Amino acid sequence: MPVDWSDIDHVTKVDPAEDLPADLSILDRTDLVIVGGSDGVTEENTLDAVERIREQCPGLPLFQEPNSASHVSRETVEAVDNLAVPAVYNGDRDNFVEKHVDFFTEVARKPEEALGSGLPLVGDLIAERGREAVAEVAEKVIGEGYVVQNLESKAAAESGVERRYDTDQVAGAALATEALYGFEVFYVEYSGTYGGPRDVEAAAQYLDETVLLYGGGIERQEQTREILDAGADAVVVGDCFHDDPERFVRTIPE
Amino acid sequence: MPVDWSDIDHVTKVDPAEDLPADLSILDRTDLVIVGGSDGVTEENTLDAVERIREQCPGLPLFQEPNSASHVSRETVEAVDNLAVPAVYNGDRDNFVEKHVDFFTEVARKPEEALGSGLPLVGDLIAERGREAVAEVAEKVIGEGYVVQNLESKAAAESGVERRYDTDQVAGAALATEALYGFEVFYVEYSGTYGGPRDVEAAAQYLDETVLLYGGGIERQEQTREILDAGADAVVVGDCFHDDPERFVRTIPE
Repeated sequence: MPVDWSDIDHVTKVDPAEDLPADLSILDRTDLVIVGGSDGVTEENTLDAVERIREQCPGLPLFQEPNSASHVSRETVEAVDNLAVPAVYNGDRDNFVEKHVDFFTEVARKPEEALGSGLPLVGDLIAERGREAVAEVAEKVIGEGYVVQNLESKAAAESGVERRYDTDQVAGAALATEALYGFEVFYVEYSGTYGGPRDVEAAAQYLDETVLLYGGGIERQEQTREILDAGADAVVVGDCFHDDPERFVRTIPE
Repeated sequence: MPVDWSDIDHVTKVDPAEDLPADLSILDRTDLVIVGGSDGVTEENTLDAVERIREQCPGLPLFQEPNSASHVSRETVEAVDNLAVPAVYNGDRDNFVEKHVDFFTEVARKPEEALGSGLPLVGDLIAERGREAVAEVAEKVIGEGYVVQNLESKAAAESGVERRYDTDQVAGAALATEALYGFEVFYVEYSGTYGGPRDVEAAAQYLDETVLLYGGGIERQEQTREILDAGADAVVVGDCFHDDPERFVRTIPE
């Protein structure tokens, strides 16, 4: 089911390898949850986080953002509303295109061949239900065109980002997303630091059909408001959900 | 104006740096013309070719496929129906993403800044009409996700292609186009050699919204038919249009 982005101002990114807060009712006022991470993430802890969040907030849209094909299985695809797949504009070739073609090659491969592949979970997914499963994966995929702006972040290291984009390049990548790459989402990622509204403003002027997300360092409602006023469709809040639930609640707009 | 691909079986690729046939009425039975090339291509000879073809076939859809931003100007954008922009899946990073972000960064840059840029034609385009021109460029862009399969070809050398995709990878890139990258066209390019129907069959099974083009080595109608039967929306014929007009005419389906 397509997500109605007009209802979404505040997104929570949940790392399934970290502890969830004891009281998940703090999610009641966020508008969307994205489950994903890198170190220690598995299909199992992804499913566990998804199930716990579903139980607390049954109506909340919930995405998986897999960092690796091994985090994806029949169960995770069925458990979430969408698979959000990041392609990093200012990263290396692998993180913009190669690993995605590899992933879809595994998904598209014939069942009998996929069983022997290095991606058993995808293979299992396909083997069991064939073409129908391929269509289900494809329909659930939402592309995210990322610009990763904190060079010191883990996200930068993992996606091969060696240089920031200036605001003109952010605007260019946004326009390229709108006009050439059909990603549903354009994502300005400051990962752990607050980047302010400039990149968001630069991107927003060229985005019409594309959803604009900002993530990084949001710790209070004034920052959320500043980013939304700059033209983002929503802010993404991650770290403080795990680290400081009270602070997390203060990032949610009224 | 969007192209109605259901009417298009046969596409002619015209290199504006090469001589056009004396009798352009051989284009009367093709369904679409794409003007583009590399060596010797300029904005001027592009415009010249476009004007001559428009004069002969006023109703024929006509694209520019620029190899470089310097081939694009206000005049070329206005003269053609669409700008077809190739992104090469099995090429280098520059040819899948970087040069496109650079191009759109120039397009998006503010007029006064673009004037001093290294892309004077795009700068001129933007300086003259501002945001309206940006929107016109963006609306005319059609993305083409290419797989270049002839490693000996100039296309391979120019786009940094060092390895062919096997049929599973072609299928994977097709599925990635359909599900993740929103290119309007998926293009199997054998550039100068006839690749047969296998890659086309592999791609076609996963393409629904995406248009499937095949180019390379088509010299007679049986090959056109074989490729269309394998699931391509259209064949693209280039070399023999310039070299051997009689042979060119024989590639057009009845």
